[in-house]
Amino acid sequence: MAGSETVAMILPRTGIGVDVHAYAPDNDPQPLWLGGLFWEGERGLSGHSDGDCVAHAAADALFSACGIGDLGTHFGTDRPEFAGASGVKLLGEAARIVRAAGFEIGNVAVQFVANRPKFGPRREESQRILSAAAGASVSVTATTSDGLGFTGRGEGISAVATALVYAVPAAPQSDSA
Amino acid sequence: MAGSETVAMILPRTGIGVDVHAYAPDNDPQPLWLGGLFWEGERGLSGHSDGDCVAHAAADALFSACGIGDLGTHFGTDRPEFAGASGVKLLGEAARIVRAAGFEIGNVAVQFVANRPKFGPRREESQRILSAAAGASVSVTATTSDGLGFTGRGEGISAVATALVYAVPAAPQSDSA
Amino acid sequence: MAGSETVAMILPRTGIGVDVHAYAPDNDPQPLWLGGLFWEGERGLSGHSDGDCVAHAAADALFSACGIGDLGTHFGTDRPEFAGASGVKLLGEAARIVRAAGFEIGNVAVQFVANRPKFGPRREESQRILSAAAGASVSVTATTSDGLGFTGRGEGISAVATALVYAVPAAPQSDSA
Repeated sequence: MAGSETVAMILPRTGIGVDVHAYAPDNDPQPLWLGGLFWEGERGLSGHSDGDCVAHAAADALFSACGIGDLGTHFGTDRPEFAGASGVKLLGEAARIVRAAGFEIGNVAVQFVANRPKFGPRREESQRILSAAAGASVSVTATTSDGLGFTGRGEGISAVATALVYAVPAAPQSDSA
Repeated sequence: MAGSETVAMILPRTGIGVDVHAYAPDNDPQPLWLGGLFWEGERGLSGHSDGDCVAHAAADALFSACGIGDLGTHFGTDRPEFAGASGVKLLGEAARIVRAAGFEIGNVAVQFVANRPKFGPRREESQRILSAAAGASVSVTATTSDGLGFTGRGEGISAVATALVYAVPAAPQSDSA
Repeated sequence: MAGSETVAMILPRTGIGVDVHAYAPDNDPQPLWLGGLFWEGERGLSGHSDGDCVAHAAADALFSACGIGDLGTHFGTDRPEFAGASGVKLLGEAARIVRAAGFEIGNVAVQFVANRPKFGPRREESQRILSAAAGASVSVTATTSDGLGFTGRGEGISAVATALVYAVPAAPQSDSA
């Protein structure tokens, strides 16, 4: 039959990631890294890594979408070379792992909740750096919790991310006859 | 080749939005607007707008999915005409901005966390109003935090939303020869 | 026209679900059920059901994606046979309801936030049980809130889930001519 049709549905998979880091204590101040950016003069987060909960939530959402575990699975004690890695490096490695597992990344969206820093002026810079690390679009947004909860009390920063990935066909078809 | 195929995959983009509003203080009581509805006799939320965190989370998830910023980006101090706008109006404007940026909306899903009001009897009414504002399906659900955290203590209401959007092809193809 | 094309886009719908359960009080200890698994020696959660917030969040995300309500809508007081049901049973019933409403499930992704139990060694077991219940891929991941908030204080466990579903065409097309 002329005009026979093949309709391919590639259904993406959704994933979710939450990450929280407490601020470093006053007697052990840290630089603030958030959304792949260094924030001069801002109080930093604690953590074995740089505490970049935006990048961490993005990485966790990618793992979640693929069903291949989480940050602890991939960057736990058996991979000490990532013990102190930056969030950007972790996100890049997460994207590599995801692709090695047979998935391609649609996009990642992260929102963090914090009283500060003022994010708007550097949002596009953050998105560029994280998107370059993931090899896919990463959007970053910010909000506050209106003074409520641990983020409202200034005890830490939380971030939540969603990601879409899709399984790459084992043998990609060519359009050429 | 007869029956040669071109399969276009339109991959949607995912977004996430979180919004929190504290209850208005006893000495400055406010009406409660939530999910696009007025809730008679219920304690209201604070905020320059009507404090409708369900509508706000939905709008933020749409912006997040498109990678075009957040509520602060679009309804900040440089657009004073939205300073006191209702959540429904903000969601409608967010949907307009998203479409002007070249996206169509798949759907939006919001869940809010609060001890009250009892949402079930008005859920469909809420969904109709928000869906009409967005020009796309907006589902709204409710839960509690089992007495824990700021929502459990009755200090405020939080909402979290996801949205799917997709880029509208610049020159839509027709099936006709 | 030879080589005519039909491209069907099946746009999935996204949903979100949050669920929180407090730990059972010391004077009424409960077994811990989480992610469809029994956790020996771990402090259990309160709740009319088994308190499995991972399974509950997954079910709520499915309902949310379809726009057909939430756990309260479907397992409320008018269906007393689910009053004490396990999370796995609720998730299975949620999936049945979703399919009866004309949807198929793409995948579900859940992350829970808790100080314990140590989830990694049993993650795949959890995913198998929940995926079997849903008849679709359910990924489960874990994180902590770095000592902050009610999860950090060990007052309870929270879980957040996303799901993708898609409407099943009323009359599925066959590829055969």
